[in-house]
Amino acid sequence: MPLKIPRIVMKFGGTSVADLDRIRAVAKTVKKQVEAGCEVSVVVSAMSGVTNQLVDYCQSLSPLFDPYEYDAVVATGEQVTSGLLAIALQTIGIKARSWQGWQIPLKTDDAHSKARIESVDSEALIECMKSGVVPVVAGFQGVDGTGRIATLGRGGSDTSAVALAAALKADRCDIYTDVDGIYTTDPRIVEKARRIKAIAYEEMLELASVGAKVLQTRSVELAMKEKVRVQVLSSFEDSPAAMEDFLPGSLVVSEDEIVEKEQVTGIAYSLNEAKVVVKNIPDQPGVASAIFGPLASGNVNVDMIVQSSGSDNTTDMTFTVPKTELAQAVQILENERPNIRFKEMSTDSDVVKISVVGIGMKSHTGVANTMFRTLAERSINVQVISTSEIKVSVLVAAEYKELAMRALHTAYGLDAK
Amino acid sequence: MPLKIPRIVMKFGGTSVADLDRIRAVAKTVKKQVEAGCEVSVVVSAMSGVTNQLVDYCQSLSPLFDPYEYDAVVATGEQVTSGLLAIALQTIGIKARSWQGWQIPLKTDDAHSKARIESVDSEALIECMKSGVVPVVAGFQGVDGTGRIATLGRGGSDTSAVALAAALKADRCDIYTDVDGIYTTDPRIVEKARRIKAIAYEEMLELASVGAKVLQTRSVELAMKEKVRVQVLSSFEDSPAAMEDFLPGSLVVSEDEIVEKEQVTGIAYSLNEAKVVVKNIPDQPGVASAIFGPLASGNVNVDMIVQSSGSDNTTDMTFTVPKTELAQAVQILENERPNIRFKEMSTDSDVVKISVVGIGMKSHTGVANTMFRTLAERSINVQVISTSEIKVSVLVAAEYKELAMRALHTAYGLDAK
Repeated sequence: MPLKIPRIVMKFGGTSVADLDRIRAVAKTVKKQVEAGCEVSVVVSAMSGVTNQLVDYCQSLSPLFDPYEYDAVVATGEQVTSGLLAIALQTIGIKARSWQGWQIPLKTDDAHSKARIESVDSEALIECMKSGVVPVVAGFQGVDGTGRIATLGRGGSDTSAVALAAALKADRCDIYTDVDGIYTTDPRIVEKARRIKAIAYEEMLELASVGAKVLQTRSVELAMKEKVRVQVLSSFEDSPAAMEDFLPGSLVVSEDEIVEKEQVTGIAYSLNEAKVVVKNIPDQPGVASAIFGPLASGNVNVDMIVQSSGSDNTTDMTFTVPKTELAQAVQILENERPNIRFKEMSTDSDVVKISVVGIGMKSHTGVANTMFRTLAERSINVQVISTSEIKVSVLVAAEYKELAMRALHTAYGLDAK
Repeated sequence: MPLKIPRIVMKFGGTSVADLDRIRAVAKTVKKQVEAGCEVSVVVSAMSGVTNQLVDYCQSLSPLFDPYEYDAVVATGEQVTSGLLAIALQTIGIKARSWQGWQIPLKTDDAHSKARIESVDSEALIECMKSGVVPVVAGFQGVDGTGRIATLGRGGSDTSAVALAAALKADRCDIYTDVDGIYTTDPRIVEKARRIKAIAYEEMLELASVGAKVLQTRSVELAMKEKVRVQVLSSFEDSPAAMEDFLPGSLVVSEDEIVEKEQVTGIAYSLNEAKVVVKNIPDQPGVASAIFGPLASGNVNVDMIVQSSGSDNTTDMTFTVPKTELAQAVQILENERPNIRFKEMSTDSDVVKISVVGIGMKSHTGVANTMFRTLAERSINVQVISTSEIKVSVLVAAEYKELAMRALHTAYGLDAK
């Protein structure tokens, strides 16, 4: 019985294909996998800086540019890289050809400049691979129902790669980037941060949404939905020789693939939130909807919420909104003052949200308590708390950011040995 | 009965769309024609410098790059311009959309990097124009029979424009460039050169092949075959307000559209030829084929030929070849010396070919004689002569280039008043 040939999708981001030397290096990385016997498809981003230049052109001509034309313009960045990498591969003896979204076809909806993938026709690409030719796919783009080029929004090449891996039923989708994996926290803040070997999709989503920027959120959602095993690794280090070798990056996989479930997998922070306190509201049914109804109608995103008793049979409502939406939130609440009947309102932008994330929380108790005790020992006052099944977030004064994160990193046993 | 709506194709070259300011200027030029009531389609080149950069990328990766991938890479230059011009048009109130070759489709053969157009499907573009939207077509490219991007070779956007004008049955194809028309000769050499109002396809072809570089030769051949009226004009001057207005450029049209047929329409020169003299060949049948057969087999292009009597029942053969092929020609003839049995061979690269061109020659006699007399009066020795129905060419020493051209320009009455 013949062995199954491993099939992988390799995706290279903008810094990985920044110039011709980097493109040559990427070709060598691809060659290793091909020579190790893998069936390989490649997805590429634009050379770094190119997309920004093209976006600038469109915005200079018209701040309200037609997204259809924007797509035709910016999609060329990835088209160039796909052709150049195909040439670089051929030069070192690997048969290759470029594929644009419309050639595959990779079909999208018509939400131009931020389109969503509707389907990927895998037939031509599989035929291409079977004939010994490496497809080099231009990421970030597809074609809409009327045959016009559509792009997937910034960072969309990750999503292209995952969608391709799903359509090709690939064993793995390798995302090559300028970092060598996903870390327990930001190494610029916590020196003892270490690389995570394996992380669940749900954890990655929580970490991504609170600050980690390694993978585009939509690509992780898609990977989770399609059960695509994603590996994040650096294109600036030597790649593994083959599937079976030691994998140097971070795997993003299903929870059930993760054997050792830590209580906490990672710690993230966000400086993008501001706190709003609405005080001395007459305590009666409907307070919450009187506040949050108008905010929702005004498209203000409310995140953490805590309600507490005020004086004289009143209640206080504390919550966070994105800093960029703070002014709008205040305006809306002032307009609603006659309905809400609060006495005063205060805001604070000098706060940080710190989140600990881990699927282990489902089975381990005391994760939140460890957090509160650790912060209390450093006399850090917790202003707002929110929890989900696999996340505990606290809002503290911004000045404690580093102190709090280092203390929590140690407390959860995440420090590198 | 409704008046026929004039339909024109407007093509803008690289210097005409060199940067965003130039693209905005082009948009205004297009707007004028639209507001004058024309149905307009636009064809654009890449912004100047872009194609060279992309070609450099390919050549740096591999001097023997895959032409399929080269096409995918370099075609992006025009794609960017098409989207940007569409945005620029929308910004000033003109509905527009970009069209790539594969979207039209504009079908080519599979001679990648120098493909020829096989067909242009006009249906979608006509529908686009009928709905009041200006199609902005990426020049220089199409799609081959297997759905891969193919480019037409350098300068191919002119050919795109003419092919489009033929398919759309356009009344005129306006080629906007950085000169304001076609001149009787090179104005850098002959100060009194003047713009030609109308020139026949055949004349333009003869002038193009001997040095004028305003229009790509293939585009003129196609215009002649499809009877497309071509106008060359400057994008750096104000354009005519409408079809009916004074046309400031040069028209390239059928001979029968030209009312006043001058004896000579233009004078061109070429420094790209070298002279070869093979002397004292035994005069017997087969001399010409003994010489020119091997040269043809060796892919050496022979242009002007003259045979003259030598001494002692021998003959001399004088002819020209491209300078770049001179060394090869000499090598081939030396190898063939035993067959040809010539005594000596000499070469001269210090020559210029000067050609006078005009459809009027067909009906006027004495054009060649005027040439010889004019040159003789200046004691310029004519080394080789060749003639066609509408052209007389002479080879003279290179040092006489300016003197000869100015004298001929005056002699044929071409000087600007």
